[in-house]
Amino acid sequence: MFIGAQVSLYPMTSDFVDVIMSSLGALDPYRDKLRIETDDISTLMVGAPEPLFDAVRDLFARAARQPDHVTMHVTFSRGCPGEPDDPTCRCETLTRAQGLSLSERQAEAQEAVRTAPALGVAIDVQFSLYVLGQDRHMDEIYGCIDFLKNSGTFLRSKNFCTRLQGDAGAVFETLRQAFLRFGPAEGHVTIDMTASANSPIAR
Amino acid sequence: MFIGAQVSLYPMTSDFVDVIMSSLGALDPYRDKLRIETDDISTLMVGAPEPLFDAVRDLFARAARQPDHVTMHVTFSRGCPGEPDDPTCRCETLTRAQGLSLSERQAEAQEAVRTAPALGVAIDVQFSLYVLGQDRHMDEIYGCIDFLKNSGTFLRSKNFCTRLQGDAGAVFETLRQAFLRFGPAEGHVTIDMTASANSPIAR
Repeated sequence: MFIGAQVSLYPMTSDFVDVIMSSLGALDPYRDKLRIETDDISTLMVGAPEPLFDAVRDLFARAARQPDHVTMHVTFSRGCPGEPDDPTCRCETLTRAQGLSLSERQAEAQEAVRTAPALGVAIDVQFSLYVLGQDRHMDEIYGCIDFLKNSGTFLRSKNFCTRLQGDAGAVFETLRQAFLRFGPAEGHVTIDMTASANSPIAR
Repeated sequence: MFIGAQVSLYPMTSDFVDVIMSSLGALDPYRDKLRIETDDISTLMVGAPEPLFDAVRDLFARAARQPDHVTMHVTFSRGCPGEPDDPTCRCETLTRAQGLSLSERQAEAQEAVRTAPALGVAIDVQFSLYVLGQDRHMDEIYGCIDFLKNSGTFLRSKNFCTRLQGDAGAVFETLRQAFLRFGPAEGHVTIDMTASANSPIAR
């Protein structure tokens, strides 16, 4: 299994370089657990979903604590057939999920969001979950949407995507659960996600 | 068939509202061909791939002609089973592609990029193509990657995505061809795309 993300942070300020550089410190606790490589478009992070989603969450929360409008785009991917197996990506939740029914997975996902730490940072998120390589991909998508509606972070459905809203802790836990609990444990699943904070536009 | 995009423009300047508002004028020629709806995170555009990709291209080119670093994220989607049929989305290219072999589709895609108009704006793009709802989704992905490598806009492969580079005209034509020519004509296909211009980081 290969698990990772391409992450881009977009501070809407002329001091965007400073905001990005000062936010990167939030990744320090995760640097020994993730492979992190940056180019001019995005930062690749490879590793298990626990440090991966925590790192992405803390990076965005750090930037969102500054006053400027900031957004982040992340492409999460697990099980892409084109990527090599990587033992650092092993994930207990994913292995366990294999044997569970859809309703059991929904209940465990909801419990994880309920007990997520609060970071004290309000954010908006919009995302799409893609379950690749199987005929009945929409069953898992609809199962995930049911979970989202009961997650406490659901805002509304939009064309092609779902809106979440709430504390960064609960929202990124919702994303991690969507990523891990739906679609086959060994399957190819991706998320296309945008986060936003401090927007001048009323919600 | 339902075809559309969720589009977000991110100018990395404290004048981001001005850059966004002045760039929106680039959509005017397409407003009678597309349904366009904006909220605080993204702008939905629904319609046929000809005006859709032209509109997204012109929006980004207009923003990129200004001096500031600017990025754009777009989620393109066609054939999502959760969306209603929309006659304004009808697309001749998609209907024709149904009967063609992979190599014929690759050749037509390459010809379309070769004859794309030049806009005089250099851009970088990173994107992932997702073919949903079929077992052998990677065959079409690999077929698309072959096309990309011969498109003249290919920069390099990255984990989870492909980098393109070149004039906005050729690059967005490459994206449109990837979206239309690969995956079943009636299937569910999406693109997760990031464009960048005027970055202070050397490529």
